[in-house]
Amino acid sequence: MGVLGCGNVGAPLVELIGTQGPTVHARTGLRLEVTRVAVRDLDKPRPISLPPALLTTDPGSIVDDPDIDVVVELIGGVEPARGLILSALKAGKPVVTGNKELLATHGAELFQAAESAGVDLLFEAAVAGGIPIIRPLRESLVGERITRVMGIVNGTTNYILTRMTEAGASYADALAEAQDLGFAEADPTADVEGYDAGAKAAIIASIAFGAAVTAADVHHEGITGIAEVDIAFAGKMGYVIKLLAVAEQDDAGAIGVRVHPSMVPLEHPLAAVRESFNAIFIEGAAVGDLMFYGRGAGGSPTASAILGDLVDAAVNRHRGSHASVGQLSDAVIRPIEDAASAYYLNVEVLDRPGVLAQVAGVFGDHAVSIRSMEQEGLGGEARLIFITHQAREADVRATLAALRELEAVDRIGSVLRVVGDD
Amino acid sequence: MGVLGCGNVGAPLVELIGTQGPTVHARTGLRLEVTRVAVRDLDKPRPISLPPALLTTDPGSIVDDPDIDVVVELIGGVEPARGLILSALKAGKPVVTGNKELLATHGAELFQAAESAGVDLLFEAAVAGGIPIIRPLRESLVGERITRVMGIVNGTTNYILTRMTEAGASYADALAEAQDLGFAEADPTADVEGYDAGAKAAIIASIAFGAAVTAADVHHEGITGIAEVDIAFAGKMGYVIKLLAVAEQDDAGAIGVRVHPSMVPLEHPLAAVRESFNAIFIEGAAVGDLMFYGRGAGGSPTASAILGDLVDAAVNRHRGSHASVGQLSDAVIRPIEDAASAYYLNVEVLDRPGVLAQVAGVFGDHAVSIRSMEQEGLGGEARLIFITHQAREADVRATLAALRELEAVDRIGSVLRVVGDD
Repeated sequence: MGVLGCGNVGAPLVELIGTQGPTVHARTGLRLEVTRVAVRDLDKPRPISLPPALLTTDPGSIVDDPDIDVVVELIGGVEPARGLILSALKAGKPVVTGNKELLATHGAELFQAAESAGVDLLFEAAVAGGIPIIRPLRESLVGERITRVMGIVNGTTNYILTRMTEAGASYADALAEAQDLGFAEADPTADVEGYDAGAKAAIIASIAFGAAVTAADVHHEGITGIAEVDIAFAGKMGYVIKLLAVAEQDDAGAIGVRVHPSMVPLEHPLAAVRESFNAIFIEGAAVGDLMFYGRGAGGSPTASAILGDLVDAAVNRHRGSHASVGQLSDAVIRPIEDAASAYYLNVEVLDRPGVLAQVAGVFGDHAVSIRSMEQEGLGGEARLIFITHQAREADVRATLAALRELEAVDRIGSVLRVVGDD
Repeated sequence: MGVLGCGNVGAPLVELIGTQGPTVHARTGLRLEVTRVAVRDLDKPRPISLPPALLTTDPGSIVDDPDIDVVVELIGGVEPARGLILSALKAGKPVVTGNKELLATHGAELFQAAESAGVDLLFEAAVAGGIPIIRPLRESLVGERITRVMGIVNGTTNYILTRMTEAGASYADALAEAQDLGFAEADPTADVEGYDAGAKAAIIASIAFGAAVTAADVHHEGITGIAEVDIAFAGKMGYVIKLLAVAEQDDAGAIGVRVHPSMVPLEHPLAAVRESFNAIFIEGAAVGDLMFYGRGAGGSPTASAILGDLVDAAVNRHRGSHASVGQLSDAVIRPIEDAASAYYLNVEVLDRPGVLAQVAGVFGDHAVSIRSMEQEGLGGEARLIFITHQAREADVRATLAALRELEAVDRIGSVLRVVGDD
């Protein structure tokens, strides 16, 4: 096989193939052998030593090499990864990739190319690192009507939120700590604004619902606005705040995909997913609730997922078979305004008689029903914390707009979806 | 296809094939059709109505029918299920089964028969109902060195322990409640003594380690001796008591498989598995910690797992391929005496000076190191609660025997393994 890229995942993958080769051979009868590795710079020091004859700076030469029968793409990004994968597939070579950015933007094209060529395109590592989720969705649950998937699929933000919850850290301090530990990048935008989770949500939705969902279809809200007061109220009311990627399909087939911070009830399995761990929670019509938990990132867990796919690709190739995503239909995307959820709203108002009635009246005017309210004095002001029943996003937005018009409303803080109650 | 058995799982399966057939066809191009159903009694009222022409009381006629290309076995028990499955496999028909008892006793024979015939024998439903665990173990983790699997794989006992923990119920009351709700049988022995979990543990160990482990290799301890005082101390010390099925493989390849109540730290993902839910926690050398959570029983979740296998079998048959467990090696079973764990011990002693030193001395004499101790007065007696560091089972047994010889020791209550600290 040929490996494109020998960094964070490629190096542990080459090592893992070395240590686990005998086990794979015993179980499948096949021998995995890395014959070529494409790197950007031949002279860069690497965590593992590879024979110089294995290395090349030309990934295209690996794709074109008739002696290479399987290609692992670990370069990342859209190009040249896309072109290399398409070439490999066209040449009849199965491809294993962990490239979420590429799949979330060009997935349908790549799946179609694999189907036309009759070879595998496997991508377990693209979503939630070492957690087997793509294969269960594609195979175990192929006959299941999945109604919703909720995932904690970004370890950086889960670490930050865990520290805010358990150590009382501020967002800024928790982010700095995550950066010190190497869990967050110097520029954390892709993680904390939900773009990384959004790409994974698009891939999950595509596989769960058999429709071509792309990163552009995903509504994003990040965690930068989460305040210590929100964390404290969540705990007091029996919730914990998590950044969730949510993909839903309604009875008519319309798909909603969004990433946002959510209030998760403490007794919900997702509430127990701490630190940098990931988990994907699936609601199915027949199977009920399922959850898959594990390491969503890191070289070694991701290499483990790649190896599982590699063995699958090798076995399938040996048998003249291949796995198939099937034809993805065009996705009907539900606008975020039509999504429904229970909501948490943090509203700062002037502390004087009649304000609560006035605020509650605005909710009623927009058909948003209040499930509970807590009031906290703040000197001359008061903080009102509302939890609503299920409400349409559009109605909540109209409520917020009307609240902002009230002279007695000082400021609207966090507005978070609440899991449960549906 | 032909279905042997139309009860708790068979009936929802036939319904699910009806409702999900179009989705399966859209995704795979294959049409699933139930053409024969074997039942014990033609006249028995059934939850679903089937055309009388579909029904037969002769399961052998289904296995022998050349028009039937896939067989689903839902009869349960060893015979006649074993003979029917072997006949079907020999006739080149893939078989899907949820029969844990059969696989835990004759698994190696059946896998071998499937391999010889070159057809599928799929059994996702045999362990943990609707949770995809067998396929991830067989495929996603085929190259992973799994060191330990810990599962909550019996919903009845997890429900009972949850009620004891959360509602302060006694064992007897929690059992009665589980029986009222239909979660426990009138004779609960197979569940509460760990035999059901043991059969599942044997299957999990066989697949995780690629070795033929049977139910007879599993050490069992049940939950009937768990007292309210144990539940209370667990909570106080930051643990929750769960019945765990544990399968381990050491570096030399020896396998230990056991079922027993365990103290699970509250921050461990298994601690959050409540009521009748199941979960399987996997520790892998490269992938780290994984957990799979969901409904471990019930007609509809189990039917969902069967359907996933059915689609797989149909697709493989269509492609002339098949999944393979591979050759199971002979298992080297580690005697329970050689297992190591941290332990919780509840010892009632006379409340007089010098007793603690005497008791602690017995631990030291047998190389069992104490991590923590709590003492509680009971009138003229005292209760000593010990948590040990990792210790060999044989050393703990010798410690217990020596403690029983002490005149100051009144009674030894629960002795439970503690998860963590290794």
